[in-house]
Amino acid sequence: MVSDYIAVQIHDGAESPAEHFIRLAESSADATDSNRPDAFEILSTADRGEFWDLIFVGYWTDPTRHARWSEGSALGRWFRDLDPETIDYGAWRECIVVPASRVETVYSSPEREFGLAACAGIELESTTTNGYFGAARDRMPISAIDTLEPSTDYPRRPRPVPSARRRVRAELGANVCAIRSGQYWESATGEQLEDYESVLEPRLLSGMKHLTDNQDATGTLSLRILRSTGTLDAPPRRETSVVGYFRSLDDLETWAAGHPTHHAIHRHAIEKNRQYGDSRTVTTWHEVFVLSDAHHFEYVNCDPATGVLPYARRLWTISDD
Amino acid sequence: MVSDYIAVQIHDGAESPAEHFIRLAESSADATDSNRPDAFEILSTADRGEFWDLIFVGYWTDPTRHARWSEGSALGRWFRDLDPETIDYGAWRECIVVPASRVETVYSSPEREFGLAACAGIELESTTTNGYFGAARDRMPISAIDTLEPSTDYPRRPRPVPSARRRVRAELGANVCAIRSGQYWESATGEQLEDYESVLEPRLLSGMKHLTDNQDATGTLSLRILRSTGTLDAPPRRETSVVGYFRSLDDLETWAAGHPTHHAIHRHAIEKNRQYGDSRTVTTWHEVFVLSDAHHFEYVNCDPATGVLPYARRLWTISDD
Repeated sequence: MVSDYIAVQIHDGAESPAEHFIRLAESSADATDSNRPDAFEILSTADRGEFWDLIFVGYWTDPTRHARWSEGSALGRWFRDLDPETIDYGAWRECIVVPASRVETVYSSPEREFGLAACAGIELESTTTNGYFGAARDRMPISAIDTLEPSTDYPRRPRPVPSARRRVRAELGANVCAIRSGQYWESATGEQLEDYESVLEPRLLSGMKHLTDNQDATGTLSLRILRSTGTLDAPPRRETSVVGYFRSLDDLETWAAGHPTHHAIHRHAIEKNRQYGDSRTVTTWHEVFVLSDAHHFEYVNCDPATGVLPYARRLWTISDD
Repeated sequence: MVSDYIAVQIHDGAESPAEHFIRLAESSADATDSNRPDAFEILSTADRGEFWDLIFVGYWTDPTRHARWSEGSALGRWFRDLDPETIDYGAWRECIVVPASRVETVYSSPEREFGLAACAGIELESTTTNGYFGAARDRMPISAIDTLEPSTDYPRRPRPVPSARRRVRAELGANVCAIRSGQYWESATGEQLEDYESVLEPRLLSGMKHLTDNQDATGTLSLRILRSTGTLDAPPRRETSVVGYFRSLDDLETWAAGHPTHHAIHRHAIEKNRQYGDSRTVTTWHEVFVLSDAHHFEYVNCDPATGVLPYARRLWTISDD
């Protein structure tokens, strides 16, 4: 299973490569390319400060088709050929390739497909392995034979990495845990819309704030709150997701099972599902990937706070030779 | 499944780090270390020219234990901390981590275990999926759903890579095929010893020469003919193996099914197995791993002809920051 995030990092006031990036992303998903992603989405940073990210995420169920797409697609070639010394924006790529045994997903409703599950050939099935702490791990086939413990710690770097004007790769250890957790309330109205916006969303944001305020203690290597984007001119869609990397699945579970901010989210989501049943119009879902240690994330002329850079173990730079 | 090659490259006439390397390798396999390799061997270049390689190969069936061993073992730390600018030898690491579905092995006899199969918990089972061209692919579970095609070509670099005094990583594409193919004739005597040394071994070497003389045409990214080593002072053991990387499983199969040099090896091995049956004292075996594209091989102050360097796609150098 492949989940490939490719992004452009846009600096406030600088020339924006956003439109060019969207065109590249769309042409790279062209139906005539047999290596095109099986599903893709465009996301962007929800809060835009000094810089913001516009993100393509593509999903494939065939790693060979993905690798060929990396080589041959407009977006793959664009990312590979960017010159960190001359662009006035940044770019990054966080690509996950794991066996299906290291993936789990869950959806509060089967009506609409998100993320990996939107790939052709993937079907949603009803499950009873849910509703308790530890269910995510139990849904992951490899948990039958592997406790997925972290292989290393990730001490925060004492100084920001020198990432400006450079192309760098950050190594990850074994069993880093990636989660994308989503909310879709496009069709919510009245009481349910009001409940999402005034109760559930503030609780979600409070949970995320706890994690980003306590990255070292919670093992949170990176956390991004993202909004789903259609065309650039379209009004904001009522769809958000959070993409986070944790030192391990255990670190994610520790927050989920142990912290009041997650209890508040979890309890509310279950209550509302019980209250509205099939007529619930807010969908929540997530997907979790546990990575092997062969993974490395790549950053081109990015801010040193981008992605896992503040916790990068060894850093590698591209050699022109 | 993990197959991790870590080596020191010794230059003729220079101070030899061989004894230190052997001590590091042995201490890194210490029985008191719970992350130690499940099996390991020491190999060395069979023909020693201007430089030669002394190689540790470790096997693990648990990638987390392996990743922790990389972090904490004497050999892992030694390799990580080598300073390419001051050592008067080279070192390299070619580490393979793949799901079991991307591995196959076959042995002409179950009497002695080699390579990955020597790991505790792995047992040899009788198979009838053998003796025809394509059997290796059929023994690999993933072949049921994946044709394992290469994702890219590997044009030979027009100039040797500047690998001296540097630590570099070479990227691989998807589905590079690694093979270790072994021969063990320690207990062969009389007619069988004579046959191995005068007939089979020359045929093997002739096949290997064809591949190394035609790397571009055969998709051979690297090929090493190695001798198994006990202690450094011991007489040479009657055990050799060839470790090769091919652009894809298909490239390896094309040679095996299509070239007279492999036909001569294959036919002779089958004939002798028929002739001697259970009393055959020459054992042949191999193991094949098909890699994902997350793999990269690492070279520290090595000759530019080492490993996959002549065919390296992008090269990365370590950043000290």
